[in-house]
Amino acid sequence: MASKLLHFHIRDQLREIVHILQDPSPPPICLQDASRTVSGEPNRAPLAEEDIEVPNNALPRFHMEKAVSHESLVVGAIENAFKEMDNQIEKERVTHHVSGGCCALAVVYLLGKFYVANAGDSRAIVIRNGEIIPMSREFTPETERQRLQFLGFLRPELLGNEFTHLEFPRRIQHKELGKKMLYRDQTMNGWAYKRIEEDDMKFPLVYGEGKKARMMATIGVTRGLGDHDLKVYSSNIYIKPFLSCIPEVRIYDLTQYEHCPDDVLVMGTDGLWDVTSNQEVANMALDVLMRYEPNDPCRYTMVAQELVMRSRGVLKDRGWRLANDKLGSGDDISVFVIPLGGPGNYT
Amino acid sequence: MASKLLHFHIRDQLREIVHILQDPSPPPICLQDASRTVSGEPNRAPLAEEDIEVPNNALPRFHMEKAVSHESLVVGAIENAFKEMDNQIEKERVTHHVSGGCCALAVVYLLGKFYVANAGDSRAIVIRNGEIIPMSREFTPETERQRLQFLGFLRPELLGNEFTHLEFPRRIQHKELGKKMLYRDQTMNGWAYKRIEEDDMKFPLVYGEGKKARMMATIGVTRGLGDHDLKVYSSNIYIKPFLSCIPEVRIYDLTQYEHCPDDVLVMGTDGLWDVTSNQEVANMALDVLMRYEPNDPCRYTMVAQELVMRSRGVLKDRGWRLANDKLGSGDDISVFVIPLGGPGNYT
Repeated sequence: MASKLLHFHIRDQLREIVHILQDPSPPPICLQDASRTVSGEPNRAPLAEEDIEVPNNALPRFHMEKAVSHESLVVGAIENAFKEMDNQIEKERVTHHVSGGCCALAVVYLLGKFYVANAGDSRAIVIRNGEIIPMSREFTPETERQRLQFLGFLRPELLGNEFTHLEFPRRIQHKELGKKMLYRDQTMNGWAYKRIEEDDMKFPLVYGEGKKARMMATIGVTRGLGDHDLKVYSSNIYIKPFLSCIPEVRIYDLTQYEHCPDDVLVMGTDGLWDVTSNQEVANMALDVLMRYEPNDPCRYTMVAQELVMRSRGVLKDRGWRLANDKLGSGDDISVFVIPLGGPGNYT
Repeated sequence: MASKLLHFHIRDQLREIVHILQDPSPPPICLQDASRTVSGEPNRAPLAEEDIEVPNNALPRFHMEKAVSHESLVVGAIENAFKEMDNQIEKERVTHHVSGGCCALAVVYLLGKFYVANAGDSRAIVIRNGEIIPMSREFTPETERQRLQFLGFLRPELLGNEFTHLEFPRRIQHKELGKKMLYRDQTMNGWAYKRIEEDDMKFPLVYGEGKKARMMATIGVTRGLGDHDLKVYSSNIYIKPFLSCIPEVRIYDLTQYEHCPDDVLVMGTDGLWDVTSNQEVANMALDVLMRYEPNDPCRYTMVAQELVMRSRGVLKDRGWRLANDKLGSGDDISVFVIPLGGPGNYT
């Protein structure tokens, strides 16, 4: 559902500000509602959009006024598009039979820049002149620990008497009650010892490491769309209040660099990145690109295919195996490879 | 009060873990309480500390157990020392006649590393071989906007019906009710337009830019110690719930580099940094150091003095003026300059 509709929400949000983005002057702080054309004003040209609004430059400037860039307006539009998508899923999940949730990674190209919006554990990187430029970061119980703990601390009722907002390096045994154990709370980055009380025997809100890190022992990713009905196994505790649907948006200015035909943006789901590092992806990409003419448009498709195939591996006696004989990715693998050097006009 | 007592709290916290830090094996997850020496056990040496505890290596290792480094134990100790200091101020503020609050910047040297702990808008930088390495960041309504807004959103009662957790680029006028205005909430990094409602006419929790940024129109720094009684002017709204006493701790490994006698750590209050940039501080420092023999221990004191004098400026007809004729710093200026090259054994 989100893969089909998210771009409509982004379009809708951007449509509301497109007239502002086209104007080189800074975005107006306040918009004046444009008066509708009424029959008594024959000299006024009718407005194309019903709800159009014009900048309010007539107002006096204020003593203290924050400058807001065009870029941050686009960022806000994308953030709100993700919220709207999540709202739509909430409303229509029964009729659309959408019970699950998903990560979302979206790229918007606008006025010479692209905006990478990521909510979840997908990842985007730019490969430019062989160099890797990360364009997103992953949102997991580990990277979002303090946000989750802060919410659990302020709203303990969301923890349903089953979880503690404190983190411990492992499960506590009952016989350890009264002993001192390592912990950290929502404010800490370091670890310290505390004497274990009855309340600390609850399961930690955030628990585990790396790919095994879980929030409420349920979910390994803490941003995304949907999952409105997801509950902790055999309990009545909802996961959704801790999930955020808001993406982090990073901006890449295409006009800042001269891009060559081997410069690409790679977007992939965790199925790719779990088994293939940024550097391996860059090496594979350049390896495949070398085999095709710079003008050949299918070379980018071939890179994407190769990345998927190599991350899935080959079916052997003991399951799907990578070139290094490690297990292939068991997760879904989706990859986009987008050329940054423009259409094939290379010699 | 904090300048006299904070280091005692840090010492107390570190004392509890010093036996663990001295042991090269990873810190134990759980401590076994050491049995107190009783008269029936004459062969056991009495323990020096009453509350000493020994690592519990006898317990079986657990399936999933997070590795905790010695460093992160020191970080946790410093974080908790700041909390304890803040608690002590809360308890003793009446007898000690401490009504105000302060930022705190502390450096702890331990086992070849130093730990820079910053809560507030002071700053520490390392100058190494002429290069500047920031060792802290400032905590202000701007840098902590989302933490403050998130708290205001979850606990609206703390805003006392006077403030809105939403941010607007400037004050809204009553006649703008119903119009669309730029805003951002606790989840957003970008800006978007919203239709102004009655509730949005409240003063924004976070407001203003740069040195003029304020939280609840009162305070320009969002971490530090004390200020338990601070209220919004002519209201009953407390500021303290939004202030954090937790420092951010950064680690510098002295053994990683060969330091020369001109390599220094500079710690300064905002009075220094408001008028003097990192680069200017580095230039001034190297300038002064050049004038003294590398073995002369007073050369570092002279750097600190020079930095203070140049940031204060010279009293002229129109107030204290810097070399560039701009106004000198009106804030308090405290500076420490600490040599990293070890004692004067240079030739």
